[in-house]
Amino acid sequence: MNLHSGDCPGRTVLDHVTSRWGVLILTSLRGGPLRFYELRDGIGGISEKMLAQTLRTLAGDGLVERTVEPTIPPKVSYELTEVGRDLTGPLQRLINRIAARTPDVVAAWELNGDHAVR
Amino acid sequence: MNLHSGDCPGRTVLDHVTSRWGVLILTSLRGGPLRFYELRDGIGGISEKMLAQTLRTLAGDGLVERTVEPTIPPKVSYELTEVGRDLTGPLQRLINRIAARTPDVVAAWELNGDHAVR
Repeated sequence: MNLHSGDCPGRTVLDHVTSRWGVLILTSLRGGPLRFYELRDGIGGISEKMLAQTLRTLAGDGLVERTVEPTIPPKVSYELTEVGRDLTGPLQRLINRIAARTPDVVAAWELNGDHAVR
Repeated sequence: MNLHSGDCPGRTVLDHVTSRWGVLILTSLRGGPLRFYELRDGIGGISEKMLAQTLRTLAGDGLVERTVEPTIPPKVSYELTEVGRDLTGPLQRLINRIAARTPDVVAAWELNGDHAVR
């Protein structure tokens, strides 16, 4: 499995896991199952359409499991599968490192005066 | 710094670092400086245009440094900065984990018969 090779299926997994909303949904679920509206409210700027679409993709990848409780109205919740949890550990560590180094990057933007790259 | 907040500048850094080509360029540079053509040849499927554009973005972020040796023709090489190297460590560990779990995801695709999500 070599992600630097053009025909590696891992590239698609990488795209899903590291998509903006993929990252934020997966890391949001680290604390345990969440309802759709809890995910929506916890992720600034996500639309319901993008949330539903990304959850569908992650469920298709076997990274997130969707559970429907047969109440009226039905309660739908989402949680990480074992594989999803396994990928979300290193993902969270990456996020933490990015958060820690963002001030350095912002300083580089200011130094370069290069707003175009944002 | 909270990447789950919609107005966090870390979101832009996340987008750059986890873009398909950003990931593959940053991790390619872990072994040391590379020339443009070495990067191009090492990353399956990247176009020269996307490589140049992504290198420009990563340089603007202060993650990659571009060095021009004043030979004829000039030799241009790219290497990770200290900040770039600091982010690329956890990024590489994420890639490794994704590579290890891709067979599980491929199995989920087959189980779901859901080619649309790819």
